[in-house]
Formats: sequence, structure tokens, C-alpha cells
Amino acid sequence: MTDDDRFELFAYWRTSATYRVRVAFNLKGVPRRETNVDIDAGEQHAEAFRRINPLGGIPALIDHAPGQSHVPLTQSLAILEFIDEMYPQPPLLPADAHGRARVRSIAQMLAADTHPLITPRVRKYLAANAGFDADAWRAWQIQWFGTGLRAVEQRLASEPGTGRFCHGDQPTMADICLASIFAVMRVFKVDFDDIPTAKRVMVECERLEAFAAAAPARQAGAPAL
Amino acid sequence: MTDDDRFELFAYWRTSATYRVRVAFNLKGVPRRETNVDIDAGEQHAEAFRRINPLGGIPALIDHAPGQSHVPLTQSLAILEFIDEMYPQPPLLPADAHGRARVRSIAQMLAADTHPLITPRVRKYLAANAGFDADAWRAWQIQWFGTGLRAVEQRLASEPGTGRFCHGDQPTMADICLASIFAVMRVFKVDFDDIPTAKRVMVECERLEAFAAAAPARQAGAPAL
Repeated sequence: MTDDDRFELFAYWRTSATYRVRVAFNLKGVPRRETNVDIDAGEQHAEAFRRINPLGGIPALIDHAPGQSHVPLTQSLAILEFIDEMYPQPPLLPADAHGRARVRSIAQMLAADTHPLITPRVRKYLAANAGFDADAWRAWQIQWFGTGLRAVEQRLASEPGTGRFCHGDQPTMADICLASIFAVMRVFKVDFDDIPTAKRVMVECERLEAFAAAAPARQAGAPAL
Repeated sequence: MTDDDRFELFAYWRTSATYRVRVAFNLKGVPRRETNVDIDAGEQHAEAFRRINPLGGIPALIDHAPGQSHVPLTQSLAILEFIDEMYPQPPLLPADAHGRARVRSIAQMLAADTHPLITPRVRKYLAANAGFDADAWRAWQIQWFGTGLRAVEQRLASEPGTGRFCHGDQPTMADICLASIFAVMRVFKVDFDDIPTAKRVMVECERLEAFAAAAPARQAGAPAL
């Protein structure tokens, strides 16, 4: 087994959570191979993938390290912490406990308080049980993307920890989560005018090839523009 | 300042996220004082609390360490990681990276993929925009509590990492999050028959005074039974 074969990432071109893991691997310079799970076609619920992750969710990461047997890793923030522990440089968290708490908090405002509301399973439930059509779903997306991003904007604009990036001058888990939300907002053509600090940070992220190379439009399976 | 005055936790008797932080402090034996924010009365949106946390969310934790100035810490999982870093014993995460990833993943299945769907702000939106009455909200609660808990049940019942607790024989962040979901399900009188492993772990948690003392019914402000 070469290093290129150690990590197998079950992924899909456009999902926010997959994007986060991709950026983290890119920032660390760690290779991984991606196995595509077409969630628009429901492949996450198919028997073949259920053997990988009984929960039917992506991303899932399998560590094929020789001589070891590990259950698949799931949940993007848990995977980011894992990658950061296995490959400490460059760090995805600052060195001090208060700074780490601030970065994790911003990351969770986006990955935990915002993104889970905008998932296919929620859309399916609202369509079936609350009569949500495309317009109602779009209003729902705008409500929760907007709530999460404006809350983050208020912190970034007012707290002294903010630098070129969400926290200081190096990208952290907070930037990865912020960029992941922007990435899916672009797929869904949602935008906001009143989050200038978040957008400034996003520009910094996009200057880094680790982020740019993770963009949904650059992945295998993405529709032609 | 005594140790008792260092940490100020803005809290409410019944919320799942507050419960998690309370258990973590209890397990570490670290004192904190609680300042009540009555979210049923909307105090989290009042000017007085907005000066503490502009986002209007609890829990928020202020570290009043002398000679330092810190922004309030928010997001329960970020606060748990902070407490675990500041007070390493007993640990809230296992020692190996794969185990830590498993614990964080289970914690996030509950705190990130389940709980954010059942919050007052979501209820308010669905009532105003989708005509959700009490029955529709209850069906929604059951849908997402059930989805999250059954997914966790499948992992606990099938993965070798499970022990007396979610991971091994000591309580971790995963148990704190699992117990926090049970705690609010009791408040809302929601129950499930098909999650025996999760319930077995819950019994282990409740044997520990750190968990029992954090129960909503034992907090100031809780209604008489």
C-alpha cells in the first residue's frame, strides 16, 4: 500500500461536509482517494454504501492502514479533528485554549447550527409533510443560511481574534466551515449583501489552492458550467 | 476572586446544550456559577443578555480569570473541548485518534445533526411559515429525535468500541450528548422503544452524580413536578 491508498474518502462533488474534509487534506498535503457516492441518485441509501456507513451519510473516511481495522469515520468536524491530530502541520486550530474554543465555536455555528437544517432529508420531510414547494424550500434555505452567516459576521466584525482569516492570519477549521457554506450557497445560487467581513475572509480562502481545488465545480461529477 | 467565581455559565434549566456543559463541569469537579437566562420568556433576546452574547444563544461561558479578557465562549461542543483542555482529568475523550474521532462523531450526530432541528427558532419559523401546530411540531420532534437516536443505536449496537458507555467504560463527550438528548426528550415526553443500547448506556450515565445533578428537573427555575 502506498500513502496514496491509505485514506478512502466517500464523497460527492457538491456537498458542504465533503468539501470541508477535502480542504483539510489539501491544507495538510495528505493524499486520499475519493469514491463517489451520488446522493442526488440516492446511492447513500443503497446496500453497497450501507455496508460502508450504515447511516447512509457522507463524508465517510476509511483508514486502510495496514494491520489495523477501523470503523469508518463520519461527521465532518470529527474528521477534521482527526486529520489535525494525525498530521499536525499546518495546524487547523490555534495554540491557546481560548482561541481553540473560538475557532470551534464559529465552526459549529456553521456546521452544526446552520448546515443540518439545509440537508436533503429535511427537504424531503418538509415536502412530504408541510407541502414545501421549490419557493418555500428556497425561503427556508435563505432563512437559515442568513441566520448563521449574519451571526458569524457579527462575531468576525466585532471580536479581536479576527485577522486575515476568521481567527488570526492562518486558515483554521472556522474558515473551512465558512467556505463550505459559501460553496453550497453558490451551488444553490443564494447570496447576501450584509456579510462583508465573512466575504473578505472568503476571498482570502479562495486565494489558497487548498480551498480552490476543493470547489464543487472542480470535482469529478460536477455538471458542466 | 475564588475558584468558584472564575467561570460564569449563562444557562437555563431545561436546555440540552446547557445540560452538556453542566455535566462536563461536574465530571471534572470544577465549580462554576450559573446565571439564569429564561429562554421561555425570551430573555436571550433582551438587551442585557445581548451584551453578553450578541447571538442570543445559551450556553455562554465567561472566563473571569484575573488579568485576562476573553470573549464569551459559545457552542456547547466547543465549550466541552475547552473544559477538557483546561482540566484534563478525567478525560472526556479517549487517548487514541481513531477513538477520539468515533466519540466526536457520535457527539455530533446528536448535538449537530439532531438537536439544531428541535430548537425554538425552528419551531417559531415553522409555526409562522408552514402552519405548524402542536401536533405537527410533535411529529417533527419525533422524526428528528428518532432519526438521530436510531442512527446512534445502530453504531452502539454494532461497533466494537462500545463498552459500558458509548466508547469504552468511562463517560465521554458522546455520553454527555446522548444524555442531553434524553434529558430534553423527557421534558417533551418523547420516548422510543427500539434503542435498547442507547438506553442501557443512559442508565450507566444516570448512576453517576455528575449526570444526575445536571438533570433539568433538579435545576433552579424548573417547574415543580
